[in-house]
Amino acid sequence: MGTIFRLTSFGESHGKVIGGVIDGCPAGIPVEMESILRDMERRRPGRRTASKRKESDIPRFLSGLLDDTSTGAPIAFVIPNEDSKPEDYEYLKELYRPSHGDFTYHKKYGIDDHRLVHRASARETAVRVVAGSIAKQVLERSGIFIAGITSCIGPHCITRDYSFEEMEDAANTSLQCPDKVLSRKMRSLLTSIRKEGDSIGCEVQAMITGVPPGLGDPVFNKLQASLASSMLSINAAVSFDFGSGRHAAGMKGSEYNDLFTVHNGHIRTATNNSGGIQAGISNGEDINFRVIFKPIPTISKEQQTVKRDGKPATIQGRGRHDVCVAPRVVPVVEAMAAMVILDHSLLSKSVSF
Amino acid sequence: MGTIFRLTSFGESHGKVIGGVIDGCPAGIPVEMESILRDMERRRPGRRTASKRKESDIPRFLSGLLDDTSTGAPIAFVIPNEDSKPEDYEYLKELYRPSHGDFTYHKKYGIDDHRLVHRASARETAVRVVAGSIAKQVLERSGIFIAGITSCIGPHCITRDYSFEEMEDAANTSLQCPDKVLSRKMRSLLTSIRKEGDSIGCEVQAMITGVPPGLGDPVFNKLQASLASSMLSINAAVSFDFGSGRHAAGMKGSEYNDLFTVHNGHIRTATNNSGGIQAGISNGEDINFRVIFKPIPTISKEQQTVKRDGKPATIQGRGRHDVCVAPRVVPVVEAMAAMVILDHSLLSKSVSF
Amino acid sequence: MGTIFRLTSFGESHGKVIGGVIDGCPAGIPVEMESILRDMERRRPGRRTASKRKESDIPRFLSGLLDDTSTGAPIAFVIPNEDSKPEDYEYLKELYRPSHGDFTYHKKYGIDDHRLVHRASARETAVRVVAGSIAKQVLERSGIFIAGITSCIGPHCITRDYSFEEMEDAANTSLQCPDKVLSRKMRSLLTSIRKEGDSIGCEVQAMITGVPPGLGDPVFNKLQASLASSMLSINAAVSFDFGSGRHAAGMKGSEYNDLFTVHNGHIRTATNNSGGIQAGISNGEDINFRVIFKPIPTISKEQQTVKRDGKPATIQGRGRHDVCVAPRVVPVVEAMAAMVILDHSLLSKSVSF
Amino acid sequence: MGTIFRLTSFGESHGKVIGGVIDGCPAGIPVEMESILRDMERRRPGRRTASKRKESDIPRFLSGLLDDTSTGAPIAFVIPNEDSKPEDYEYLKELYRPSHGDFTYHKKYGIDDHRLVHRASARETAVRVVAGSIAKQVLERSGIFIAGITSCIGPHCITRDYSFEEMEDAANTSLQCPDKVLSRKMRSLLTSIRKEGDSIGCEVQAMITGVPPGLGDPVFNKLQASLASSMLSINAAVSFDFGSGRHAAGMKGSEYNDLFTVHNGHIRTATNNSGGIQAGISNGEDINFRVIFKPIPTISKEQQTVKRDGKPATIQGRGRHDVCVAPRVVPVVEAMAAMVILDHSLLSKSVSF
Repeated sequence: MGTIFRLTSFGESHGKVIGGVIDGCPAGIPVEMESILRDMERRRPGRRTASKRKESDIPRFLSGLLDDTSTGAPIAFVIPNEDSKPEDYEYLKELYRPSHGDFTYHKKYGIDDHRLVHRASARETAVRVVAGSIAKQVLERSGIFIAGITSCIGPHCITRDYSFEEMEDAANTSLQCPDKVLSRKMRSLLTSIRKEGDSIGCEVQAMITGVPPGLGDPVFNKLQASLASSMLSINAAVSFDFGSGRHAAGMKGSEYNDLFTVHNGHIRTATNNSGGIQAGISNGEDINFRVIFKPIPTISKEQQTVKRDGKPATIQGRGRHDVCVAPRVVPVVEAMAAMVILDHSLLSKSVSF
Repeated sequence: MGTIFRLTSFGESHGKVIGGVIDGCPAGIPVEMESILRDMERRRPGRRTASKRKESDIPRFLSGLLDDTSTGAPIAFVIPNEDSKPEDYEYLKELYRPSHGDFTYHKKYGIDDHRLVHRASARETAVRVVAGSIAKQVLERSGIFIAGITSCIGPHCITRDYSFEEMEDAANTSLQCPDKVLSRKMRSLLTSIRKEGDSIGCEVQAMITGVPPGLGDPVFNKLQASLASSMLSINAAVSFDFGSGRHAAGMKGSEYNDLFTVHNGHIRTATNNSGGIQAGISNGEDINFRVIFKPIPTISKEQQTVKRDGKPATIQGRGRHDVCVAPRVVPVVEAMAAMVILDHSLLSKSVSF
Repeated sequence: MGTIFRLTSFGESHGKVIGGVIDGCPAGIPVEMESILRDMERRRPGRRTASKRKESDIPRFLSGLLDDTSTGAPIAFVIPNEDSKPEDYEYLKELYRPSHGDFTYHKKYGIDDHRLVHRASARETAVRVVAGSIAKQVLERSGIFIAGITSCIGPHCITRDYSFEEMEDAANTSLQCPDKVLSRKMRSLLTSIRKEGDSIGCEVQAMITGVPPGLGDPVFNKLQASLASSMLSINAAVSFDFGSGRHAAGMKGSEYNDLFTVHNGHIRTATNNSGGIQAGISNGEDINFRVIFKPIPTISKEQQTVKRDGKPATIQGRGRHDVCVAPRVVPVVEAMAAMVILDHSLLSKSVSF
Repeated sequence: MGTIFRLTSFGESHGKVIGGVIDGCPAGIPVEMESILRDMERRRPGRRTASKRKESDIPRFLSGLLDDTSTGAPIAFVIPNEDSKPEDYEYLKELYRPSHGDFTYHKKYGIDDHRLVHRASARETAVRVVAGSIAKQVLERSGIFIAGITSCIGPHCITRDYSFEEMEDAANTSLQCPDKVLSRKMRSLLTSIRKEGDSIGCEVQAMITGVPPGLGDPVFNKLQASLASSMLSINAAVSFDFGSGRHAAGMKGSEYNDLFTVHNGHIRTATNNSGGIQAGISNGEDINFRVIFKPIPTISKEQQTVKRDGKPATIQGRGRHDVCVAPRVVPVVEAMAAMVILDHSLLSKSVSF
């Protein structure tokens, strides 16, 4: 993905490593390993609400850095898969798991092997977090910052808008949700869903602040089109909207339009229903958007399915698995946003790093 | 946009022509002008509920066809802009229209000229309809069909799922909505909104039937990511979701998962919450998705804004303009979907035309 | 072709128009029609040594310019094909012309129609000249200039290096060759070749001056790789070399290496065997390269061939045709070079326009 | 590089590993490690005529293979750099080496560090050989084979055309040249050049047999343009020509044109001056081309240069280095050709694997 800042990812969740190669990172950027590990920690399983699996999640860089500074050459890295236990998956050998990729992978690649689909594992998102964390560090040098929060888990949704600072602070909480009362409700829902052997959907909200006006293209490569594409490429993502988003269907132009005003000598908009993007191009206001994720398909409850030979069967998820992609997916959303904004910045002659 | 089937568009809404060039259309496909004109007619202003402007909307093909059959060479076409009246826009010379591209274009291109933004006009979507109509004709040869409907105008939304046939039939109605009672409500809402000098948001739903399993890529180039990107590249689009989409946030895995069954000897899913796409790849079920559009920013009501020099001003839309992008945007949504599916089909060795 | 500055071309030599769409041209560049016409005139048939065909060769711009200044939007243009006479080509209906594209087009597109191949006509290069002429005008604002000359026609080759100014001056001569004595020999060779009903190969040399150090990528997208690709995409081109080029096979490192010196406080190289490019990246010296073109395949002499049904036949070229692609191809070479250098400049943060 | 079959490479010659990621390899292809190691062995230093450095050159695959068969997922691999000795390069800290990338890298990336340029090392070509070897194995399943030979070292050039079989056999000889007498002359030239502390240029020739008609595009993405780009992306390559190539400048159309004949019921050409490509598209005949390489810039002879601060200095290459890129570059040329042909095959609906 990407035109100038490009990420190529590789690896299967149960191989020895997964990894990625970043092309087009500007040269001379100091890369702080601390920040990367902090983002990795946020998507790490092993927190109270997330899966029990333990992984080291420390990326090892193979190229492109000299004394922890980018050289302009491709930055390759691998992340070890410490406790891969292929036998945990043996029972899947003959089954198509509902709403997983077993069936579609078989159809696409013509190979009837249950191990194939491990490419689709959520583990792959660790690669995105590493690359996105580097992209964030580049953007921060130009005053561009990104923060994401868990905005809904199941029916429990935040009820007001949060400032960028409040969203940033939420990163340090276990559910990455800025509303403490709500967090407690979310946590007890997750506990009961786990007991039921079920899983649950969620929503993540993100804000990008400091984006200069002028990023994005007016027709096919609109900034929101790049964001939508990158968000829908995250496992389990099923919906993207920005600004007033889906509420816009019920709004009138006189409510939705962001009137221009002058603020401290700068032209600004009085409201931000446009979510920082007008006619495909950033207008200098905060960019904000939401992504909805479906419930994780692997559940411990028994489900009907078919075997690869078409015979009916039942299936029951085993081993370690989360019950909700939030909060672990929050840094993934941030990472994808960072890569999109950086790529558009590199395409523009007006931003420098 | 596109990897093999690629559309390049050009032209400003108030120049003499707009047009496009299609690269990568397979050779030997008979192109029916009738079908193109039918789709153009559906997005044409001048219907009762749409703007009063009259345009010929008949594309003239400049290359790539021989005896109305594609040759494999680029297909270029132009569409005349019959009644361009630049003086209609003179009053905008010094103003930034709220929620239009005037301000962002100025910032991006560094040119302070109100005529610049005419590239962003909804007129540009006519080019997409021509190209998409050709893509549809290619797809139909492999049994792939696409239908879109107006699913909401303001608060008036359809209340059940419709079959592909019902959706196709709606194409012939003035609002392209399959629910007749609802259509009447929508029409009266549009009338009152027009009287108020305001505009209103809406939602379009689409279904693609006949897609073979195996289209799409498992990681960055997921089929839903391509669809999302293409839909968010349509003027005024602010939200995309597929399958159960935004409802997924509140669903449990046991509700959402599409259980496999065997139907007439084929492995199928009992439900279709996944909207025909699992792990980024089509699974052979119907693909369905929704796109929400913001209200049209040009309204006759007076609004606060600023001049290009930062001085406060008021603005009032003049001339012809719609009050809602639906129903005219429905064939645009179909067109974008057709180009995405065709491009993925051409990338796959398993579909032939 | 191109990543940021991209040209899409369309049209068949015997349709009504050919044309192109330029995406990614920076905004705010005044486009001088005079310069474009001058380059078009240089590739125009109808000069003494070139074909008798008359065309207007005046491009009509459809979009992307406002008061003759680029707006940042796609620049589309068409060039009329004034005296298309399809009946001139009727005799080809059943034949495969030797070393033309009739056979390969049939195989690629599966369409057995002699008109198909008109896409491959040299006429298509007019589109490149228009786009390249605009690219040149953008580059000139940063002090980057390009000049090409006819360096060989058949066995007659220039015998020394020419300065950039000498090369530029040659643009005004009929054969675009800076050596007057040689030009006379070339002209008389062309006359006798024409009398024989034959055609002849040639070589074009070009120089780009003013390129700043730092353009190009170190691995796959080396500057010379982009130049080679663009040159080999010109009809009839069969060889590309840069710097000391093909002589390098016989040279020693101690002869070939360009030693560094300091000149007026700048680090420069004493020689320029590297042709301005080291390790894939421009070093600030003049870029120079050579392209060799095969003889034009259409000749009046009778040749053996086969019919589309495989039966043996003879063929004899009719109508207007050149006997050598030089000098008409010289501005095409310049145009392709301009687009490549501009695209790499736009990808670099260090060049501005 | 590539549209469907894409190689991303990474790593610096003196880091711990170099490596690559292949995207778009078809699924279900058995990958023979033996063939890869054979090609790696051919580019390995340590043969008599090549550098003394010892490396293991055994790629380790990290993903994309299951039981030695491609799964369709990205194939990542690393190759260890066993005996990296950064101190060998300490003396370069302050110098710009003539005709190396030290100067241009500094200018491009703005980083003044001599270790930067190790990305440009010939070591990087090992990655291409691994990927190309896999591409060859895919192509062989469709009957497409590639062979390269050393055709010139300095003034010693082959004097006749060789059949594909003769070229293949040469792969097993130390200089990869099919002419034994010439090989002896080449070897003694290399010995004396090494004694002089100098280096020498060379030429490599390659042939691709079994390519079906119809690969390649008629305009910008001509098959020869893709080949030229890939060849000029190899370190030290300075010239590319195909078919009769540079001799075409002196040829007449009546000599050059490849007349059609019928051979065993198939339409073939009597000669192959077009080198298997007509109008940008393969015609089914053998594709053949030549690449010329400059002498290796690192020599033991003393040379004038400047320090990074502009002060004059002398430089003398130390440590291990080859005196000629041939024969080690031969498998690299084959690898690049394989990747280009495979990519065009995957873009075509008419080739299957």
